[in-house]
Amino acid sequence: MTAQAIGPLFTDLYELTMGASYHQHGLVSDATFSLFVRNYPPHRNYFVAAGLEAILNELEGFRFSGSDIDYLKRTALFSDRFLAYLKDLRFSGEVFAMPEGTIFFPGEPVLEITAPIIEAQILEPFLLNTIGLSSMIATKSARCIHAAGNRPLIDFSLRRTQGTDAGLKVARSSYLAGFMATSNVLAGKTYGIPVSGTMAHSYVTAFNSESEAFSAYSRTFPDNSIFLIDTYDTLEGARQAAAVAREMKKTGHSLVGVRLDSGNMAELSRNVRKILDEAGLSEVKIFASGGFDEYKISAIIADGACIDAFGVGTKVGVSADAPYLNIVYKMVKFGGRNVRKLSSGKATLAGEKQVFRETDTDGRYLKDTVGLRSETMPKAAALLEPVMTAGRCLRPHPTLSAIRDRFKANFACLNDRFKSLDTPPAYPVALSPKLETLQTES
Amino acid sequence: MTAQAIGPLFTDLYELTMGASYHQHGLVSDATFSLFVRNYPPHRNYFVAAGLEAILNELEGFRFSGSDIDYLKRTALFSDRFLAYLKDLRFSGEVFAMPEGTIFFPGEPVLEITAPIIEAQILEPFLLNTIGLSSMIATKSARCIHAAGNRPLIDFSLRRTQGTDAGLKVARSSYLAGFMATSNVLAGKTYGIPVSGTMAHSYVTAFNSESEAFSAYSRTFPDNSIFLIDTYDTLEGARQAAAVAREMKKTGHSLVGVRLDSGNMAELSRNVRKILDEAGLSEVKIFASGGFDEYKISAIIADGACIDAFGVGTKVGVSADAPYLNIVYKMVKFGGRNVRKLSSGKATLAGEKQVFRETDTDGRYLKDTVGLRSETMPKAAALLEPVMTAGRCLRPHPTLSAIRDRFKANFACLNDRFKSLDTPPAYPVALSPKLETLQTES
Repeated sequence: MTAQAIGPLFTDLYELTMGASYHQHGLVSDATFSLFVRNYPPHRNYFVAAGLEAILNELEGFRFSGSDIDYLKRTALFSDRFLAYLKDLRFSGEVFAMPEGTIFFPGEPVLEITAPIIEAQILEPFLLNTIGLSSMIATKSARCIHAAGNRPLIDFSLRRTQGTDAGLKVARSSYLAGFMATSNVLAGKTYGIPVSGTMAHSYVTAFNSESEAFSAYSRTFPDNSIFLIDTYDTLEGARQAAAVAREMKKTGHSLVGVRLDSGNMAELSRNVRKILDEAGLSEVKIFASGGFDEYKISAIIADGACIDAFGVGTKVGVSADAPYLNIVYKMVKFGGRNVRKLSSGKATLAGEKQVFRETDTDGRYLKDTVGLRSETMPKAAALLEPVMTAGRCLRPHPTLSAIRDRFKANFACLNDRFKSLDTPPAYPVALSPKLETLQTES
Repeated sequence: MTAQAIGPLFTDLYELTMGASYHQHGLVSDATFSLFVRNYPPHRNYFVAAGLEAILNELEGFRFSGSDIDYLKRTALFSDRFLAYLKDLRFSGEVFAMPEGTIFFPGEPVLEITAPIIEAQILEPFLLNTIGLSSMIATKSARCIHAAGNRPLIDFSLRRTQGTDAGLKVARSSYLAGFMATSNVLAGKTYGIPVSGTMAHSYVTAFNSESEAFSAYSRTFPDNSIFLIDTYDTLEGARQAAAVAREMKKTGHSLVGVRLDSGNMAELSRNVRKILDEAGLSEVKIFASGGFDEYKISAIIADGACIDAFGVGTKVGVSADAPYLNIVYKMVKFGGRNVRKLSSGKATLAGEKQVFRETDTDGRYLKDTVGLRSETMPKAAALLEPVMTAGRCLRPHPTLSAIRDRFKANFACLNDRFKSLDTPPAYPVALSPKLETLQTES
């Protein structure tokens, strides 16, 4: 199951007014657009490609509905002739892209589309929106995975993501980058991601006492309980949880864990661990949630916290320290002519491109080169692959699980020095001589 | 037309596991939950309520589909008895809420729901997500409106919003707060917002020269053209635009404007204004886009820019300097008993509430008091209204245009000293003595 199509009106008006003008003047040649991130937001030093599957599904179903055309007619901006053209429009182009889970760097195209210019142009906002959000969250999530070491992470961000679509895409992108599960039930259904979660503070306050709440919950989920212990006093909560856990043991069940959600969690976790261990409950795990991101995870581990797994929410779900990517979609070829723009601070390179990645004998990344698509570099891997021709996918989508495995393998090939959270060295990306020469010619 | 229903699986798993436990133990009494923002994010000093219409539509259509139930069954977490209960579940509760466009402050409930506890609990993530995003963007947009004075603002954020749903909600929330239009065509269709936009750099580069591009565009849209003049060199672009505008005049048409999108826009705008004026084109307006938010708008106006209208994109579309609200939904009453939690730094106040606003004789806001819903304060307006009973809306939704007017009137009643972008005084919000007394009793 996949998320629903959004349709071609998910675009900026100027894409349609430009289209109308191209149509009137007979400018209907193929154009190639290149989608890439211009530069790093603060504290970033690599990106994780995500969002391609949603793009390809949308392209295969691309069509204006009758009510879309009626709406456009009501704007009084478009000729009947252009509206008739839109009504019959299907996406007929080709797509080259990096597979989801690929690590990429600024200036490297993640995706290139070649199609009749009007089709390619209308798609711009959807492509940027989809690849931008998914890659931004996959990147933020990868940073958390690196910071957490082997401790599992669970996506808790649903309530604070920016809208319902983001709720789904954040769950998918964080799982792709290595999260263990999500609290988001719809994401579980839509993408097959494992779902996780037990109780909130309101559950505890709905009973006359904390102990009664824990006990009631354990009767409903005797083998799946995690008690939230900070509603009133965390250490007293830990003692109540331990007492109920010992009762559970008598009937052959086991408490999975307790969860901390407030206070000085490094210190509390150590004291809670002590309470659990002294009660003979060393198997009961300690979960923590509340404002975690890569920085807080890294700091609390350094502080000696006894935390086995983290619920990660808001700050990852909106990529709070870098809530957008400077992601762009630029025409690089039109009607056989390579084109570029020179705007101050926003220049773009002409020509259809490929990204070549050189690795050492262990597969570790050494250096990337952005070159022309027509180039070959025998010792390097070409990262962009043809994925769609004449508007149809060339193969079934990889499973989310396969994408997750791909990312994990890729991430292991990126030297840890590039994964530092704060002041990493820049991964080397060069331009090929042929690409450089083309710029002086176009 | 409204956005599509997302359905009850747009929730966190723990809402359903808690529900299963309540169901097993027969805890089915009514609960009241209160939705509010705990505190200000950086640089904020008021909030604008938005998102209620989407909430009410979702509540009226609330039901688990057959495939939702099948999915939940496959998780192996829930009894058949509980799944049968969910299958028949409809939202049967009541909703009190501030109308959209109301200005509110931290600690003030924007919405309170009273319903059987399982229903009220399942809705939590959807309510927080929807009110949170919409109110955050309406607030950010209001700050831009204040900074821009009488200059019109247009939402250009679609490509960088966090997902497709955010694209729609940002267009609606910014229009609600006073933006003039959006570039987002789907938002135009869905909400009836005016749409705006003309050309991108790719249009200019698709022609052999800038002049040819402008001229071609003016033939398609003789009365609706705004030329983007920074593709190669902004001042040369202005001269080319002026030449084409003079040609347009000969046939009785008029260039609407030119757009700047890069470079030192304060200085460029003054020089472009001079070029246009010297060409006898004082009626041609100057639009600017590129990284604008309330801070950049305020700074460029202070710098004497000759800019007539702003395209506002990314930084407003993700509320970049404060990309989430600390918005929460807390149980304050259950089965006739007022409840609260005491967690460190996250305490909540028991009891169903009302917000009372006192104004001066000119209607200007003086002070708010959060009290009990059962209280009356004769000289103050009660901001929360009943909007839904037994799961049905009490009246038709106000139009977006009426909501926009409401906000404009409200905003005029908030003293300008609370609208400063950086270090404003805090608007006074007190607790009523009765609400305070209740806390010591619960």
